[in-house]
Amino acid sequence: MHVSVIGSGTASEGTDTYRAARAVGRELAERGHTVVCGGLGGVMAAACRGAREAGGKTVGILPGSDPRAANQHVTTPVATGMGNARNVLVVLNGRGVVAVGGATGTLSELGHALDFGRPVAGLDTHDLSSFDGFEACGDPEEAVESVLRRV
Amino acid sequence: MHVSVIGSGTASEGTDTYRAARAVGRELAERGHTVVCGGLGGVMAAACRGAREAGGKTVGILPGSDPRAANQHVTTPVATGMGNARNVLVVLNGRGVVAVGGATGTLSELGHALDFGRPVAGLDTHDLSSFDGFEACGDPEEAVESVLRRV
Amino acid sequence: MHVSVIGSGTASEGTDTYRAARAVGRELAERGHTVVCGGLGGVMAAACRGAREAGGKTVGILPGSDPRAANQHVTTPVATGMGNARNVLVVLNGRGVVAVGGATGTLSELGHALDFGRPVAGLDTHDLSSFDGFEACGDPEEAVESVLRRV
Amino acid sequence: MHVSVIGSGTASEGTDTYRAARAVGRELAERGHTVVCGGLGGVMAAACRGAREAGGKTVGILPGSDPRAANQHVTTPVATGMGNARNVLVVLNGRGVVAVGGATGTLSELGHALDFGRPVAGLDTHDLSSFDGFEACGDPEEAVESVLRRV
Repeated sequence: MHVSVIGSGTASEGTDTYRAARAVGRELAERGHTVVCGGLGGVMAAACRGAREAGGKTVGILPGSDPRAANQHVTTPVATGMGNARNVLVVLNGRGVVAVGGATGTLSELGHALDFGRPVAGLDTHDLSSFDGFEACGDPEEAVESVLRRV
Repeated sequence: MHVSVIGSGTASEGTDTYRAARAVGRELAERGHTVVCGGLGGVMAAACRGAREAGGKTVGILPGSDPRAANQHVTTPVATGMGNARNVLVVLNGRGVVAVGGATGTLSELGHALDFGRPVAGLDTHDLSSFDGFEACGDPEEAVESVLRRV
Repeated sequence: MHVSVIGSGTASEGTDTYRAARAVGRELAERGHTVVCGGLGGVMAAACRGAREAGGKTVGILPGSDPRAANQHVTTPVATGMGNARNVLVVLNGRGVVAVGGATGTLSELGHALDFGRPVAGLDTHDLSSFDGFEACGDPEEAVESVLRRV
Repeated sequence: MHVSVIGSGTASEGTDTYRAARAVGRELAERGHTVVCGGLGGVMAAACRGAREAGGKTVGILPGSDPRAANQHVTTPVATGMGNARNVLVVLNGRGVVAVGGATGTLSELGHALDFGRPVAGLDTHDLSSFDGFEACGDPEEAVESVLRRV
């Protein structure tokens, strides 16, 4: 199954956000699932890295028109040349979504994901608990389970 | 100047949300501005209606591929055939954004608008006061002034 | 009615291509129609200029994300930030299409227009006479009439 | 390397077009390349099938919003919900393009591919030999070699 991982594009390697995203990627891959993300850095790179460490596959849907802009852990880069409109494709291509941290770009993706009726699990991200479909979770394993249970 | 008005697509004529959106459209048109919206019903139709009542112009950027799906108050319909990815275009084409009510689709547009650095004024919509660029306002006139002041 | 005008983005003012596109814009506006185009230079600017000279309206659907990139004769700019994918929107938003000159970008638009079943008239453009829907025409007036007759 | 295969969406199994597309997919996979296509039937399915028979990978970039609409030979489906605007993404994501047969949709993709500067090889498709970048080829092996040589 394809599951989208979204969140902060700027989280760097030492941070809790990066560690959580990497663990989410690893959890998903260990259960045989493919990570779909925006293909760039921060949470996107961390989730892909975790998935690769567990032998999984990763799809990176990029805002620009050069597939080589994908982070090194993306196994299938998809260039769009559509800028932020690619955010829609990122959540459309997961049957569920895990969000880790993130700012306004992540907020747009959360809105689209809930609008598409995708189950969403949040880790230290915007609190959207008032919306059907969103569950705030305490750790990566719980987040992955929350999404998989509701797909 | 083009200003985007976003919000509930289902608000019907008797509601406070509809009335507020209509007043926002009227305020904008009276000051010579063009309303940009998603072209369909609810807040989109109300804002266009208010703008037309004040002799203004309205642009409706539609999710489907038939321009005739636009509400009757749209003077320039633009079909996209891109589904919800058109939300990005709605906020990209206003130099500022007024949000009235709304659910998850509106949330996605708020995220994109803030991500693009647009000044956003909110009327009974998601509370995003923790983000730079968002101001919660008490009435349509205040919302229009909030956006115009910050453009 | 909205009619799309497509063609060479580099034709400069002294050329036959520019003159033909300007005449197409003028013809359309004189009959009360709105020109839809890609919003930039060459044929796009010429068609908008002709339409404005006849008091008409013009819509420019731009590849970039800044509406101010539109040529000065566009009355309603629409930014997309989608690059060449905006070509699809250019032909989707006309009920018919007139093509004047043009290279590979125009070829992509001709393909999309015919794929959408739009009537297309060509002036010194790619010869697609083997396709239903395409008519090669000898002058601007004939091209406009060819499209309007078949809408 | 990712190489796009485009062409008739309606070619059925017994046809020369289908056979040629399947052979193109096989040739590409045997040399270690990934097939990128529009994910649906005809040439798209044939190219993916050929690639899979040689143990290769296939990416299907779909017009609709449901990844499950991909043909059974697609290993990585990517839904876009953008309709024909996805044609742009199909050719953007190959470093070269092989076209087999096809009608107006294929013509739009050929235009985009040449506009992006991609080397294009054609098998019984539109004759675009007057454009730099296009080579008409006689058989699948020649087409694959033509593209790979020019990337």
